[in-house]
Amino acid sequence: MKAPAALDLLTAAFKRLPGVGPKSAQRFAYYLLQHDREGAQMISRALSEAVERIRHCARCNTFTELEICETCASPRRDSGLLCVVETPSDQLMVEQTLSYSGLYFVLMGRLSPLDGIGPKDINLDRLVTRACDGVVREVILATNFTQEGEATAHYIGELLRARGLKVTRLARGVPVGSELEYVDAGTIAHALRDRRAVDD
Amino acid sequence: MKAPAALDLLTAAFKRLPGVGPKSAQRFAYYLLQHDREGAQMISRALSEAVERIRHCARCNTFTELEICETCASPRRDSGLLCVVETPSDQLMVEQTLSYSGLYFVLMGRLSPLDGIGPKDINLDRLVTRACDGVVREVILATNFTQEGEATAHYIGELLRARGLKVTRLARGVPVGSELEYVDAGTIAHALRDRRAVDD
Repeated sequence: MKAPAALDLLTAAFKRLPGVGPKSAQRFAYYLLQHDREGAQMISRALSEAVERIRHCARCNTFTELEICETCASPRRDSGLLCVVETPSDQLMVEQTLSYSGLYFVLMGRLSPLDGIGPKDINLDRLVTRACDGVVREVILATNFTQEGEATAHYIGELLRARGLKVTRLARGVPVGSELEYVDAGTIAHALRDRRAVDD
Repeated sequence: MKAPAALDLLTAAFKRLPGVGPKSAQRFAYYLLQHDREGAQMISRALSEAVERIRHCARCNTFTELEICETCASPRRDSGLLCVVETPSDQLMVEQTLSYSGLYFVLMGRLSPLDGIGPKDINLDRLVTRACDGVVREVILATNFTQEGEATAHYIGELLRARGLKVTRLARGVPVGSELEYVDAGTIAHALRDRRAVDD
């Protein structure tokens, strides 16, 4: 007994999704065919439309349907500030703070030598060109505070400072709302070193 | 700042998959657009083809591209035996034992009153018609040994025995390769009750 070919192909296709193995792929296929054929068609259409329409912004590299994304094209943004993030979700998180009005550069990844991801794979040449346009006066590194994110920030920092740009990094410290008892020592050490005067 | 519409639609579509929440859906969308656009198109095509081609076998209710599936149509199968399973994956597991040559009926689910799944939702009327065709002499209940699977087996058993059919259930007992120390008491109790003579 064999499963129908169209079903095998669908299961194989779902295995292309990150973190989805044979069992989950089969579960997705069975579920959609049995309970949600409308959802299956919806996913199919959304995928082909996204592949057709979504590309990278020519300036900041984020996902967009336009040549230059809305943020980069906005006249209300401070074009002297450039915030470097790993992904569009990180960019969204910074936006949600409502406390940043500059522009962005989205790496779409981080340096990860073990996974074979080098400077070219995260568009560092484009970042350098973008940052050295003569208008940007400060580059804020907002990559993650993981080992790979820190290494990426360090690498980019060296690269841009060599070209005479001012480079800053998001502050490390105690998260808002947290109790010192449950914060790790490394974080407290950073918070101590970067302490601020109370009248600041 | 908003995400592009095509990206939002794709993320929303992925949330239709079972067990996939907003974060996973976004991860799927970003991953495919960034790293595997070919895979995205592959999934899109596989979905629309599967929805178009896959239907239920008119006899056994499993997924098939034909009116009657290959197993039901095979002349080498013993049409006097009918094995009732919950899903096509369960059917595949029974097939892989290479020790069953009868036919199947796939419920595509199990009785689950709490989830609102009643006898009609798992095609029990079709199962009764199928089992009472005059050729079937024994119905083997191979639903899962979970509470819902057991309840489903019990319900189907009552239904078919009332119509004079011979109904059997897969044996419960100690799994092959397991140590008694790590087997639960209920399983050992069943294995004791159903013990076999050694010369059997």
